[in-house]
Formats: sequence, structure tokens, C-alpha cells
Amino acid sequence: MSDADADADAEDLVDGVLDGDHRALARTITKIENRAPGYRDLVSSLHAHTGGAEVVGVTGSPGAGKSTLVDKLATRYRDRGLTVGVIAVDPSSPYSGGAVLGDRIRMASNIGDMDVFFRSMSARGQLGGLSTATGDAIKALDAFGKDRIIVETVGAGQNEVDVVRTADTVVVLVQPGSGDDVQMLKAGILEIGDVFVVNKADMDGVRTTVSDLQEMLHMRDGTTAVDAGHHGSGMAVGTDGETTGTDRDWDPRIVETVATEGDGVDDLIDTLTDHYDHLRTSGELDRRQRARHAEEIRRLLRSAAAELLEDELDRYGGIDALVDEVQARETDPYTVVDRVLDPLVDCIERSED
Amino acid sequence: MSDADADADAEDLVDGVLDGDHRALARTITKIENRAPGYRDLVSSLHAHTGGAEVVGVTGSPGAGKSTLVDKLATRYRDRGLTVGVIAVDPSSPYSGGAVLGDRIRMASNIGDMDVFFRSMSARGQLGGLSTATGDAIKALDAFGKDRIIVETVGAGQNEVDVVRTADTVVVLVQPGSGDDVQMLKAGILEIGDVFVVNKADMDGVRTTVSDLQEMLHMRDGTTAVDAGHHGSGMAVGTDGETTGTDRDWDPRIVETVATEGDGVDDLIDTLTDHYDHLRTSGELDRRQRARHAEEIRRLLRSAAAELLEDELDRYGGIDALVDEVQARETDPYTVVDRVLDPLVDCIERSED
Repeated sequence: MSDADADADAEDLVDGVLDGDHRALARTITKIENRAPGYRDLVSSLHAHTGGAEVVGVTGSPGAGKSTLVDKLATRYRDRGLTVGVIAVDPSSPYSGGAVLGDRIRMASNIGDMDVFFRSMSARGQLGGLSTATGDAIKALDAFGKDRIIVETVGAGQNEVDVVRTADTVVVLVQPGSGDDVQMLKAGILEIGDVFVVNKADMDGVRTTVSDLQEMLHMRDGTTAVDAGHHGSGMAVGTDGETTGTDRDWDPRIVETVATEGDGVDDLIDTLTDHYDHLRTSGELDRRQRARHAEEIRRLLRSAAAELLEDELDRYGGIDALVDEVQARETDPYTVVDRVLDPLVDCIERSED
Repeated sequence: MSDADADADAEDLVDGVLDGDHRALARTITKIENRAPGYRDLVSSLHAHTGGAEVVGVTGSPGAGKSTLVDKLATRYRDRGLTVGVIAVDPSSPYSGGAVLGDRIRMASNIGDMDVFFRSMSARGQLGGLSTATGDAIKALDAFGKDRIIVETVGAGQNEVDVVRTADTVVVLVQPGSGDDVQMLKAGILEIGDVFVVNKADMDGVRTTVSDLQEMLHMRDGTTAVDAGHHGSGMAVGTDGETTGTDRDWDPRIVETVATEGDGVDDLIDTLTDHYDHLRTSGELDRRQRARHAEEIRRLLRSAAAELLEDELDRYGGIDALVDEVQARETDPYTVVDRVLDPLVDCIERSED
């Protein structure tokens, strides 16, 4: 495809998405997932039309019942007359073939109208890219005009934490008696939950799980101020405190559900509404969105800079040739880095004059 | 201090280190730990004099007996007429006050001669920096002429894995019946161990621990080819497979010790010698050192580029001003990144003409 064709295609897609064409939406998200040519311009154009959706992230251990809960949640939203988009993200899988099959099954089990638009995304390439791609897909759904967007992760590890933070409200699913609570504490998931759902609330051990959870949340609220700095991406570019701050004005809620029966799903929706109201009235929504935008800019900058540096390394014969010199003690890493970066710094300084 | 004074000071320090002055060595490592002005030139100058030491990394859960084992190991090395440097690294602590006190206690408990040079380092600032600082401190000890350098980490998590990889040989300590094995499997420590030490081998459960370990190592050698890509730092700049490759020609050894009694420490030293011989004759030593140098260059590049980007962000009013624009939908993250980076790219292209 020529550049001009690609541009025209991108314009058509943007128009399609804004006009409520589900096929255009699906193609847009596919472009985003594949990082296909033109996806950047596409997302850039859509950004201006975002900001209308409430985004809910759902995470928790495999087997806790996330898919079932998300399906019920989507159905109840539809019952209330709201349009819904669901993105299921699997950071551990590099493939999307299976995910596509999963789509069909899930679609069929759903209400059957396209107003619950379901898509899965997987980890093609690096994980940092997955958070970006998820954020971009959310923008597409938001610009399309979906009222509610649900981001569902397959697992509950650090990668999932990064993905689920693209949401306004984070829901953490816990299965009674599974020991999930301790595992999640470790993965840093406890710290980011706004609403905790104890699913399969008809199982044994629900009381214990709820009270354990209450205790851990109590501890969390006593300690997060100290820990806040550790939950970020830990990347080199300074992540400002904003991103990881905890919302001290919101006491995390615990909701009990039996997702298979649909029990407690309305309670959950009411709680999500309460949380979103809180976000809006307290200024926390703005704070979170700003933090996400800052993180987005920094992440894109890092990845663009990394490409730039690889090109620069190539100009000096590539990393292998440089390692040869260091290994032979003809030079050392600091000197190599100066050699690669000094021309850039000079360039910048000259252009500032 | 003026630049000229700093330069003269750096030269004195380099001369001191190369002349075997322990005070100069201590001051050099302090500069490295604090990232004090001139530390880069210092490390650059020392690099040419490195390559003579065998570097052993020791990691394992708290309470497994690492400090005791390292003390005994250092003492036995001394008994064999070798000079020793020890660096104890605590990635979880941002303070070094306590560590300094620890130094004194440990020093006193040691043989009393300065040929076991002991230093602790803590995580000031970011963790990526700690691996770099540890690598730099190793260079100082190496250039000084220490025959053996032991890098000991306080804990056994992912950060410790990154630190301990600055060593040629990685020793992993396991305490019988502690469940350490499973935890370590998770933290990715099992994959990087060349030698496993079951310490406190006079405790109950030693047989079980040893056979569990054997089984896990057996599984490891069946699966590492598949897993190899996951153990890297996960950073944006491409980490080449080199860094994380497993040495298939070395069957990891298990040594039993009772460090408090000194039992098994000579066995351990013999095993370490075997491993180092293997590294040298198989070409693996060269491969590992190259991988470390490549990683070092990339890490330094990333962190220098991050600083550069922060400066560039400031030229555009800082991240907050840019976030304001994105938040107001006047622009979007991709456009912001292009705005910041395009002048750099132009600069580079012009300078290539």
C-alpha cells in the first residue's frame, strides 16, 4: 500500500469509528494490536474524541471467574441501556490464534448484539508495548462512543498490574480459600485495587477470605505511603510519584458475587458507580488520567529513544564491535557511551543556540 | 572542588588503587556508590587494569547463612594465600548507615588483615544503577589486584538476580526445609545458579532438599531453552539473547555445607575452581563477560538517554505542560513524542550528511 493509500485508509477508519461502524472499530484495534503502518496517526486522530467512557479494569488469578463476571457485568450494563466494549488481555501469550477462537465462543455466549464489542489482545513483542496497545485500544472504544469499557487481564502478575492500570477503576477478583490473597499481596495487586470482588461467594471459606482481605486492606492503608515508590514500572526514566500514588480518600470496597448465577453483579455495578462518582468529585479522576498520560508519553519516548540508540550503535559498528573493544580493554563502557551520545548532545546544544 | 582538583584527585585515586593502597580503594568505592563527581573517569581509567580476578556471586534467602558462608569462604581463600574482596549488596535498603555499622562488625569478625577487604553497598536511587555500581566496584577490586571477589546479596529476588549476574560464577544458597527452593524457582534464581549450596546441612530435611533441588535442576535443564528469553531486565532496549543464555555444558553442582563449623567450605572452593576452569576452557567465560559488557553499555546508554530526554522534555515546558495539552485533547501522546524527538532525529540525519 502506498503512503497516500495508507493515509486515505486511516482517514476512512477514523470516520468509520466515529460514525459507529463496528467493522471499522475492529480493523482499528487490529492495526493497534499489530502495530500496523499508520496505527500512530490513527490513534492520534482518535485521541481528540476520547474522554467519554468509564474504564473498568478487572484482574485476579486464573480460575477466579473473571470471564464469567465480565460477561455478566457487560450484560447488566446493556440491560441498563449502556454500550459496552471489552478488551481481554493476555500478557503471557505471544499468540492471538487461540484468543480469536476464544472471541467467537465468548461472542456467542454473549447477548448477541454488537453493543457488547469483545476483543482479545495478546503480548506480541515486548510487554511495555502491551500496556501502550491496551491504552490505544481503549481510546478506539472510547472515541467510538462506548459508555463502559472493561479491560480484563488473564492472570494477576506484575505485567497484568501494568495493563490494568490503564483503567479508571481497578477491580480485583479473589476466589475463597485459594490463597489468592497472599499471592496478590506479593504481586502488588492488592495495592492497586479500588474494588475487591470475592467471587464464588457460595463456596466454603468466604467469611475467612473476606476478613483476611479486610485485614490486608487495613494494613495496606497504613503502609502504602511508605511503599508507593515501588509499584511503578521501575524503568530508567523518572516515573513521577503521581503514577503510583494511592487514593487515600477512598476506602476500598469488598463485594461478594456468584458470577455464574449473576448474584451480586448489580451490587458491583453500584459500587463501580460510587467509585467513579468519587473519582470525579474528588479530582482523583483527573489526577489518574494525568498520571496515565504522563506515563504514556514517557513510555513512548523511551521506546523511540531506544530505537534511536540502536541506530546510533550501528553507526559505531554495532554493539558487538564495541564489546570487542571493551573486552580487549582498548576502551571501557563509559567511554563507549560518551562516544555514542556526545554527537547527539552537541547536536542539541547547537540547535539551541 | 574545581575540575582540575577533581581530575588530580581522580588520578591520585587511580594510582593509589593500582599501587595497592586500601584507603584509595575504599575512597574509590565510596565515590562509585555515591556517584560522586569524577566516578566515571575513575572507572574508565581502572577498566584497562581489570580481568585478573575470579568473581563469585552468592545469593539465597535471608537466614540461609550467606554472611557466615562468605566469611568462611574468604578466610579459606586467605589460607590458600589468595587476596579477597567482598561486596555485600542490599538492593532493598536505600540507606547505608546500618550497612556501615555492619561493615565494622563483619570486619572485626574477620581475620583482621586487610587482605579481606569488605564493603557493603545499598540501593541509592534506582535499582538499575545498583547493578552498574556493583559492576564498577568489582572493577575497582579487580584493578587493585584482588584474586577473588565475592559479591553477596542480602535477599534473593529479581533485583538480587540482576546484581549477582555481575559475577562469573553464581552460587545459590538453600536452607533445608525452608521452602526456599520453590520461592527461588519463582524468582528466577534457580536458572542462574552454577553451584548450589545446601547450607546448615546438619539440619533435618537435608536429603529432601537435596533431592528436590536435583529434580528441579533436572527440569531446568530440560526447559531453559524455552524460558531463556524471560530472565532479562525486560527493558525497552533490545537485550540480546547472549545475556540470558544457559551454559548447557556445565551440570550444576550441589555442595553441602555447615558454614558455622566451616564444614564443606573446601569442597565449595574446589567446586568453584572446577567451574572457573570450565568457564575458561569452554569459552563460556568470554561469552559471559561479553554479555555483561554489552548489557553494561546498553544500561549506561539507556540511563544517559533518559537524562537527555528529561532535558528535552523541559525544553517543551516539562512533562506537566505537555500532559495539560494531552488532557485538554489539544494534542496526543504520539504527537508529543514526535515533537520532542523529531529535532533530535533531524540533527542526527544532518550530521550524517
